[in-house]
Amino acid sequence: MTYVPPAPSELAMVPFVSVENMMRLVNETGPEQVMIELAEFIEADFRRWPEFDKTPRVASHSRDGVIELMPTADRDNYGFKYVNGHPKNMREGFQTVTAFGVLSSVANGYPILLCEMTVLTALRTAATSALVGKYLAPEGSKVMAMIGNGAQCEFQALAFKAICGIDTVRLYDIDAMATAKAAKNLQGTGLTVLSCSSAEEAVEGAQIVTTCTADKQYATILTDNMIGAGIHINAIGGDCPGKTELHRDILLRSDIFVEYPPQTRIEGEIQQLEEDYPVTELWQVMLGEKQGRQDARQITLFDSVGFAIEDFSALRYIHAKLKQTDNYQMLDMLADPDDPRDLFGMLERAKG
Amino acid sequence: MTYVPPAPSELAMVPFVSVENMMRLVNETGPEQVMIELAEFIEADFRRWPEFDKTPRVASHSRDGVIELMPTADRDNYGFKYVNGHPKNMREGFQTVTAFGVLSSVANGYPILLCEMTVLTALRTAATSALVGKYLAPEGSKVMAMIGNGAQCEFQALAFKAICGIDTVRLYDIDAMATAKAAKNLQGTGLTVLSCSSAEEAVEGAQIVTTCTADKQYATILTDNMIGAGIHINAIGGDCPGKTELHRDILLRSDIFVEYPPQTRIEGEIQQLEEDYPVTELWQVMLGEKQGRQDARQITLFDSVGFAIEDFSALRYIHAKLKQTDNYQMLDMLADPDDPRDLFGMLERAKG
Repeated sequence: MTYVPPAPSELAMVPFVSVENMMRLVNETGPEQVMIELAEFIEADFRRWPEFDKTPRVASHSRDGVIELMPTADRDNYGFKYVNGHPKNMREGFQTVTAFGVLSSVANGYPILLCEMTVLTALRTAATSALVGKYLAPEGSKVMAMIGNGAQCEFQALAFKAICGIDTVRLYDIDAMATAKAAKNLQGTGLTVLSCSSAEEAVEGAQIVTTCTADKQYATILTDNMIGAGIHINAIGGDCPGKTELHRDILLRSDIFVEYPPQTRIEGEIQQLEEDYPVTELWQVMLGEKQGRQDARQITLFDSVGFAIEDFSALRYIHAKLKQTDNYQMLDMLADPDDPRDLFGMLERAKG
Repeated sequence: MTYVPPAPSELAMVPFVSVENMMRLVNETGPEQVMIELAEFIEADFRRWPEFDKTPRVASHSRDGVIELMPTADRDNYGFKYVNGHPKNMREGFQTVTAFGVLSSVANGYPILLCEMTVLTALRTAATSALVGKYLAPEGSKVMAMIGNGAQCEFQALAFKAICGIDTVRLYDIDAMATAKAAKNLQGTGLTVLSCSSAEEAVEGAQIVTTCTADKQYATILTDNMIGAGIHINAIGGDCPGKTELHRDILLRSDIFVEYPPQTRIEGEIQQLEEDYPVTELWQVMLGEKQGRQDARQITLFDSVGFAIEDFSALRYIHAKLKQTDNYQMLDMLADPDDPRDLFGMLERAKG
């Protein structure tokens, strides 16, 4: 006779959103609408920034890459993301970056959500960029240059369309296959998509310039002469020590906006500058404590590296969203003996 | 027509051991045999201690408890445990401590195991205690006093039986119900079980004294006059700042052995002593670089707090064990687009 153990109690169960369920959830709502809603959650959390327990990410470096844990918490919830970064993975058929995350109750420490975050991180990164664009891009921006047409490219284009109202993207990548992939994926989204043959061509007439390349090195994707007055630069790809995309001279001509200075000074474009170079924290701009864009000729730069609070907002959003869908499964992750002191008895009774 | 998306590829799947499957796995092998095998994995990892990336746990404290991440890595694998500690949970029908863990490949950063660790931590803690007992307890020890008869009690008793050869446990808890629970669970295990009405009575004739109480406070479970020459003390319960079990005078009469001094000085019994009080690291004893027990009259003390490497060993053990069983399920945790740069296309194609 096959033994069938008793079903675990509800207290022991944690909802899990797999990649398949995340894709269903995003496609049911539509990626643009998901990023609009995500940006609302992210903005709400940026506006209560001082309430969060903030800590730099905990990184474990190896020859080929890094594995990181990014925790944060407010009074009610604790969240963390596990994320790796292995540039050589792509050549071997693996993802450079994969991620998952957990949201928990601070009151009793129990996890309340386990969630894939490879897809979700792509969405939250683009939603954050476009949210920041709303505060910093020149009024009436319609055209965005996208330099680097990898995994993040289409998400950025659609987020800026949905949240900032752009209608045209000008694509460029050193690999024409990447540009062709992005152009094809963006067909039928309502955006005018132009494929360019150089970064110089891509930035022509753009009010917003997004850089999003993947090589781990000090690179110069934008040189000083390519950036005219009034541009907003959304710099995504310079996001770890030894990896930058912008020439230092551009930084010196820009007003620089960041998520969390202690982390950005290590990981962002500003690793090229002195430790105390003045930067503005975005949460203060969103709260109205600091000014965002002040005039039409100013160059603004979002030196994006991705902070734990954005992942927290994304987990909070998915957790709220689960109430409206059945795109999850319940996992028996937590032991729940009848008497909390009787863990051994639970094990014995499971023999049936 | 209901949409059925394509099955995720094998690269996207991570084996998950639920509580139910952990209980099956432990009951199929038997808890004593599992702890013998776990102790072998733990000893092997202690003996290559310098190879590990070691970092103190990352804790997020709140009014009612703490949530911690405990990462570590060797050249091949990265592991971390999520664990909470909420003393008030028991009164509300929740577990004081719940845990889960992840083991990953360092080479590409992909998780290779997600595992419940509430049951597994109980097993690894007892296996570690008994492994240390093998090095420090007096030769021919047969009798162990168990002060504190909560969730860890039966695991300790069986680990010391299986690994150190004890044949008798003398139980005491301030709550007689806890003692009755443990005595009942230990019936038929081959141990002689005696329920005592005081801690003083419990230690009579014992060569090993295990303290394992749960209240978060500075407590004095053992006073100096209760500990005679030659005893090995296995102190489990003093494991976070502000929580100790032993009178300071006992510490001063003992030779103290610890897992990882930077963590034990904050969390263990030795938080009562000066910062540079001499302690011996267990991995050095296991390697033969330092002496364990030197004579029959010496008092030895294992100031146990639980270190990330023990969880790493436990995850490594379960991962190896999965090859022999089907006690797991596969979770679609990782996105795996055909082209790693085409995350957006994967999302589009999932529309079917």
